[in-house]
Amino acid sequence: MPDQTPPRGYCVPLSPEGKSSLNPTPPWHYASDCIAVEYWADPAAVAALLPPGMTLDDGSAGRAFCWFLDWQFTGEQDELTDPARYQYREAFILLDAVFEGMPVTYCPYIFVDNDAALARGWTQGFPKKIGSVFQTRSFPVPSLAAAPLAPGSRFGASVSAHGERIATARIQLEEKVDDPTTVFNRPTTIRRYFPNLVAGLQGTPAVDELTLSLVDDPAMVGMWAGSAELRIPEVEGEEIHRIAPLRVGRGYRFSFAYSVSDLRVLRNYLA
Amino acid sequence: MPDQTPPRGYCVPLSPEGKSSLNPTPPWHYASDCIAVEYWADPAAVAALLPPGMTLDDGSAGRAFCWFLDWQFTGEQDELTDPARYQYREAFILLDAVFEGMPVTYCPYIFVDNDAALARGWTQGFPKKIGSVFQTRSFPVPSLAAAPLAPGSRFGASVSAHGERIATARIQLEEKVDDPTTVFNRPTTIRRYFPNLVAGLQGTPAVDELTLSLVDDPAMVGMWAGSAELRIPEVEGEEIHRIAPLRVGRGYRFSFAYSVSDLRVLRNYLA
Amino acid sequence: MPDQTPPRGYCVPLSPEGKSSLNPTPPWHYASDCIAVEYWADPAAVAALLPPGMTLDDGSAGRAFCWFLDWQFTGEQDELTDPARYQYREAFILLDAVFEGMPVTYCPYIFVDNDAALARGWTQGFPKKIGSVFQTRSFPVPSLAAAPLAPGSRFGASVSAHGERIATARIQLEEKVDDPTTVFNRPTTIRRYFPNLVAGLQGTPAVDELTLSLVDDPAMVGMWAGSAELRIPEVEGEEIHRIAPLRVGRGYRFSFAYSVSDLRVLRNYLA
Amino acid sequence: MPDQTPPRGYCVPLSPEGKSSLNPTPPWHYASDCIAVEYWADPAAVAALLPPGMTLDDGSAGRAFCWFLDWQFTGEQDELTDPARYQYREAFILLDAVFEGMPVTYCPYIFVDNDAALARGWTQGFPKKIGSVFQTRSFPVPSLAAAPLAPGSRFGASVSAHGERIATARIQLEEKVDDPTTVFNRPTTIRRYFPNLVAGLQGTPAVDELTLSLVDDPAMVGMWAGSAELRIPEVEGEEIHRIAPLRVGRGYRFSFAYSVSDLRVLRNYLA
Repeated sequence: MPDQTPPRGYCVPLSPEGKSSLNPTPPWHYASDCIAVEYWADPAAVAALLPPGMTLDDGSAGRAFCWFLDWQFTGEQDELTDPARYQYREAFILLDAVFEGMPVTYCPYIFVDNDAALARGWTQGFPKKIGSVFQTRSFPVPSLAAAPLAPGSRFGASVSAHGERIATARIQLEEKVDDPTTVFNRPTTIRRYFPNLVAGLQGTPAVDELTLSLVDDPAMVGMWAGSAELRIPEVEGEEIHRIAPLRVGRGYRFSFAYSVSDLRVLRNYLA
Repeated sequence: MPDQTPPRGYCVPLSPEGKSSLNPTPPWHYASDCIAVEYWADPAAVAALLPPGMTLDDGSAGRAFCWFLDWQFTGEQDELTDPARYQYREAFILLDAVFEGMPVTYCPYIFVDNDAALARGWTQGFPKKIGSVFQTRSFPVPSLAAAPLAPGSRFGASVSAHGERIATARIQLEEKVDDPTTVFNRPTTIRRYFPNLVAGLQGTPAVDELTLSLVDDPAMVGMWAGSAELRIPEVEGEEIHRIAPLRVGRGYRFSFAYSVSDLRVLRNYLA
Repeated sequence: MPDQTPPRGYCVPLSPEGKSSLNPTPPWHYASDCIAVEYWADPAAVAALLPPGMTLDDGSAGRAFCWFLDWQFTGEQDELTDPARYQYREAFILLDAVFEGMPVTYCPYIFVDNDAALARGWTQGFPKKIGSVFQTRSFPVPSLAAAPLAPGSRFGASVSAHGERIATARIQLEEKVDDPTTVFNRPTTIRRYFPNLVAGLQGTPAVDELTLSLVDDPAMVGMWAGSAELRIPEVEGEEIHRIAPLRVGRGYRFSFAYSVSDLRVLRNYLA
Repeated sequence: MPDQTPPRGYCVPLSPEGKSSLNPTPPWHYASDCIAVEYWADPAAVAALLPPGMTLDDGSAGRAFCWFLDWQFTGEQDELTDPARYQYREAFILLDAVFEGMPVTYCPYIFVDNDAALARGWTQGFPKKIGSVFQTRSFPVPSLAAAPLAPGSRFGASVSAHGERIATARIQLEEKVDDPTTVFNRPTTIRRYFPNLVAGLQGTPAVDELTLSLVDDPAMVGMWAGSAELRIPEVEGEEIHRIAPLRVGRGYRFSFAYSVSDLRVLRNYLA
């Protein structure tokens, strides 16, 4: 038998043409509708989630955002026309923090309803679990069911995992936000972590890096702000309730797009 | 014990305040994004699905539409802010037919991913089963993942049940449709059917009516037309492949809204 | 065109050969593993769920069972070899009550994860909604993960709907139950209910009957009893927490089989 | 602020007490019911899936097994009493191969319906994707729905992903297998693979090892053999049909248990 071309793919499973891979090689392109709620949690509980070298931001200790996103993904092969595989919903928390003097956000918890999204997330450092995520949509039709982008419109959002409600949010639109960067202006940091199973090494991961999410061509469009509610109850098998809201700020609704082609390693914890 | 107020609700389960009911009492309000593909099936296969008294439309024998809809539903209590319960996805077939001289469409097959939607459907006469339905979405952001409403944009859609693909569609936008009624202009008929289980009555349903779907304030907005593909393969436990496309026409993408507060019974098959 | 044979099927959707129907014509055959927890709820809350003509059982006012079942279904065509369609999980509550002097149970709430099961249930009178149901299984292997049928073994069970936990149970086996009829000995009553949508008739259902579930060849096998826990929290959009446990009794784990070929109508509320 | 204890957990997400982690630290304990079908695929297609250094087994070139498993998992904290999180279903292919003179099997494709199982798999080297998996169960009750462990009993199994059927199997029991090691006697090898996202490193994974699955206390119980059918159709976005069956051998049904506390690295492809 002649030499065999080894199986290939950006991630598992590897296969002869690489088509079985959960994801294509970057660049990856994303478009979404988003609901995000600003809130304040117990600063000590926030600090307890930060990775080594990262500290609370004295200027905004305990400040967090709870995000809900309806995503559409595509690679370079029109993946968006296969929505059963490449459309997904996501919810996550971003905590205000500081790393080496740089104001950042850090993502401790994130849920998606799709395995390709989970695999991309782990590759970046997003600690994704599978969940069930929903948000009210806005439709360009006249209807009580349409949730128009207009003052008074109400939107809800929720994330559940294994049949338990992780978080529930509601917002009511009040006014447009002309400049989204007045609200969202910190880079996102995450922890890229892959464990070992060999006996004796189970306490030492194979990969343990603090990384900075790099996004190409980010665009936030059609942002509205308004009043907000947020609940993060305690459920068995999760610790997310430790950063439940003590106080809730504003809610935001907007569309969001970017591409991903790179990642920056801020610190290799194994070095 | 004093007299008990009986449990109530528009549909099951009945409960003291009627809140457990799968659905509130009408009116029901709906908003959606839609992908619909016109096609032609074997006229004999279409005729074999029509209920008594309904016949093929000689002018369009075998013509059908395969629809995919991302729906948002609300009653009068802001149900749309609970998207985990009241947002759903749907796919169905509509067949051209004639009833008592009136050109109509008839719905033989329909799938939804939500029990409240299934219950509303059965109440009207839509023969809903649970399925998994997806369609490419359009986002108002600049991105390869955004599927803008513009010439050349490609959209996909699919419906599966019990892990088997029932139908897959793709369309590519070409031009706007100024007047949607040039495309969709027939009322929809369905068969309201509820069986009996008492021995000896299992061949005679308790309810068997031909009904006409009544919609208040229908609005079709932002319609685009283009080229289309559609596949309806054979799967075990379904007969939908009998009306698989012999020829595929145009594909359409638009937003759609209406309310439901009534139903018309065209014929009671038990009378 | 010659006369067309009308589409057929025991229930919707009707199709040329009847294969698209959610269910075949009875008899229907069922086998399961079950976890059931006896408990006592507020008698007034139980009474508030009973249909007209049914009253609390003075001897066991407020007594209920919360059941969890892993079901396998088959008709006469080896449906059990298509487990993606005909295997399902179920959870329900049965309330002790009396109808015309007969001690019975009445089922106010029930959840299943399968549309064919939902359709059979509605046909009988079980007010099924779609949920996500799980129970610990017992495997005939030596393992910490096996949950053997032996003293000390612990089993859990849960039901969720739309991402909210409806009920969670845990039991710990203590001793075998030689005669299951000492525990489960009341026939089950349900309310067969199908609403109207025609304006003016929306408060009057098309079908409204109190029915008695008839089971052929029932067999309860391998019953164990033990200590039990049960929680039924309040969730939005449900009223089941009104019959949450005030006191929890024994838990049971067993296998259960029966067939269904008939139904008895105890009272037609429309007559 | 005093020094913060860093967040912990065997895998992501890390949290203050480690309870949010998708999985506890090993040992991990497993119990299951299994259906496995022996078959022969195109040897060249099998060879095209093998990792570097592994070759076809000349004595059984093209031989494979398609497995379906209903699993229950537990760590040391009674995780099995939370079945919504720790019960799952799995399907995979094992290919006969040889590595350094050792007859082994290699797992190129595997699907599970649970994120904790996916995370354990990736840690070992199983290239898991999320799928929907079902198998006919056997219940210890007299019923047409019971699928008893007896000659003539028929079992079905299927795996789907994103609404497309990946594989469908059926077996019919004929006789008991006294010694399971006459059927299943090769260790399982896998490829532990975790990609990089940093630009310039996307073609070089962070982890790339050939590993040997180590199982403690394996037990196969109650094995039956019989005739079998297996179909692996072509679906978009997968390459598994390349190893579809050319010939189908025997089918097996049994229960299986083992524990996992270690992993052996056979080769580090990055060294």
